[in-house]
Amino acid sequence: MGNVQINNYTYSHHELKDWGNKVLLKCGLNEEECEYILDVLIHSNLRGVDTHGIIRIIDYANRLIKSPRSKIDIVNETQTLTVIDGKNNPGPICASYAMKIAIKKARHFGCGVSSVRGSNHFSTAAYYSLLAVEQEMVGITMSSSSPRIAPWGGLDAVIGNNPWSIAVPGYDFPIVLDMANTIVAMGKIRTCMREGKPLEPGWAMDSQGNPTTDATEAFNGLLVPIGNYKGVGISIMVDLLSSAISQSIAFSNEVKRVEDSEHPQNGSHIFIAFNISDMVDITLFKESIAKYTKTIKSVRRKEGCNEIFMPGEIEWRTECDRRKSGIVLSDKAVSQLNNFATQLGVSPLPIV
Amino acid sequence: MGNVQINNYTYSHHELKDWGNKVLLKCGLNEEECEYILDVLIHSNLRGVDTHGIIRIIDYANRLIKSPRSKIDIVNETQTLTVIDGKNNPGPICASYAMKIAIKKARHFGCGVSSVRGSNHFSTAAYYSLLAVEQEMVGITMSSSSPRIAPWGGLDAVIGNNPWSIAVPGYDFPIVLDMANTIVAMGKIRTCMREGKPLEPGWAMDSQGNPTTDATEAFNGLLVPIGNYKGVGISIMVDLLSSAISQSIAFSNEVKRVEDSEHPQNGSHIFIAFNISDMVDITLFKESIAKYTKTIKSVRRKEGCNEIFMPGEIEWRTECDRRKSGIVLSDKAVSQLNNFATQLGVSPLPIV
Repeated sequence: MGNVQINNYTYSHHELKDWGNKVLLKCGLNEEECEYILDVLIHSNLRGVDTHGIIRIIDYANRLIKSPRSKIDIVNETQTLTVIDGKNNPGPICASYAMKIAIKKARHFGCGVSSVRGSNHFSTAAYYSLLAVEQEMVGITMSSSSPRIAPWGGLDAVIGNNPWSIAVPGYDFPIVLDMANTIVAMGKIRTCMREGKPLEPGWAMDSQGNPTTDATEAFNGLLVPIGNYKGVGISIMVDLLSSAISQSIAFSNEVKRVEDSEHPQNGSHIFIAFNISDMVDITLFKESIAKYTKTIKSVRRKEGCNEIFMPGEIEWRTECDRRKSGIVLSDKAVSQLNNFATQLGVSPLPIV
Repeated sequence: MGNVQINNYTYSHHELKDWGNKVLLKCGLNEEECEYILDVLIHSNLRGVDTHGIIRIIDYANRLIKSPRSKIDIVNETQTLTVIDGKNNPGPICASYAMKIAIKKARHFGCGVSSVRGSNHFSTAAYYSLLAVEQEMVGITMSSSSPRIAPWGGLDAVIGNNPWSIAVPGYDFPIVLDMANTIVAMGKIRTCMREGKPLEPGWAMDSQGNPTTDATEAFNGLLVPIGNYKGVGISIMVDLLSSAISQSIAFSNEVKRVEDSEHPQNGSHIFIAFNISDMVDITLFKESIAKYTKTIKSVRRKEGCNEIFMPGEIEWRTECDRRKSGIVLSDKAVSQLNNFATQLGVSPLPIV
């Protein structure tokens, strides 16, 4: 084979958004719906989470083409609480709609909770929590996802790696946690398998639940949840808050994979927002976070560690950088996107 | 030394409560305040969490004697949100008061959030989340605690192991997560050190941040957070929600240890409650949890695993058992409690 030449291409976020808009319009969405989706996907690219960025437009578009959706429905609503049926719309549409309702209710009553069923993959949880932060509120986001984790002591993955996020306004940047509940994602195991590399101890178990550093055994086995039974517990609670409160037909054991575009995923989410400035002076709030951030960042460091980061700080720096210098996509990603666009009759992204 | 004889003594929860009441009345609390504290402590014993049970009455009483408190103050209040200054009252008083307000607001408006500063050690987070569950609500509890975790890459513990809990009503029993954010608690390291046993890999780091299985090195070093930087992130978010929203004078780096009874701990908490039955049929909600529980419990099991448990299930079984058969306290615990009681002029627990 010789050396494999890998080219990267750089696009501004405007460029990717305009291009994505053309793709999604072809799938029958209106401009507002396109905006919902692209805002989330491009936000992920801007923050360096490329696995959840524009590349997902392929799965989203395929589902729009192959699996019918209908109008989002508010099933039940009180002063602060809302239950929403996403009716198989793309996750970002259902989720943005739901978080915005929670924020609106929090504006009027102090807090709001929105529960969503009938949704799909929604990209990153952080995006929705940050919608609340833009309004100087706390944002909490949780979601079911397709099964990936076994109960502690069990050998069958019937629980999703159910991602969750908490975000609060900060002084220079928002402080935001966005995580799933295993030590590493399955993508990392796949990469090691492809590259013939061993895993780090503690990442995975074989199909009998024993620790392994063999990538193939791990791929056919199980991911290790953070803190073992603790990570399992978190995933179960996220599932119950997402799927039981929304009365979804699926808990995460039955949530379909994002790639399975023929069927509704039946994902569920929950969003909580509450208004900090109803509680305390928001300036004092931010100043206190700045002070604590300084304490955390100024501890003695382990050899080789050049800087301590707050949750979401690396992503924020990447975003500042990529807003100016653009979003870098791999050769492979661009060719996947362009093949797909060509099939839909949309002009490909420029290769320059 | 020869063999060390360890005796255990068994008390009914009524017996422990009556005895604890006498101790706390001597510290200047009224009957209602005693009830708040003992309900939490005995609940911990009933659920098998003896480290957070009646033994803590010594720390609580010492602080009551040595560190002045005043009347709990509502600093700010809206329809759904409350900020409370605990004024150095025992944690269970501040926390029960705050969660009950959140529940009351959730009863009227759907959800409620209470933020507390000026509090102290509150025993288990689960207790407060379960107060919401008793009202068929979701309960979420978070608390700062004294510093125990280093930022990821750092060598100084400036972040608490900040416990948190989520609870929802279940079919047979409430589903409740209650956890701190390290693989094991420092108590486990201390036990290994005392018994001359090595630690399991992945529990702790030495003072230079390198992995160690030596208990003494670990005791002078650092605990490993669950999922490494993920656990650190959780602890930071819990701290910000607890300490920044309540505008505490202390983030967890400055929260005093429970044993340091001369000073206010300056702990902070946050409580969230929302009313499930405003959103969905509570019977259907519980039935769906029963169904998912069955799925989770019936997976293939790893060799040596006899049963899969849901979060909070083991504690619930222990509670059912101990309500009937009583709470077992070690010889050492009883002698500590009795020495303390004698100093206060309270009759000791019977040794039978």
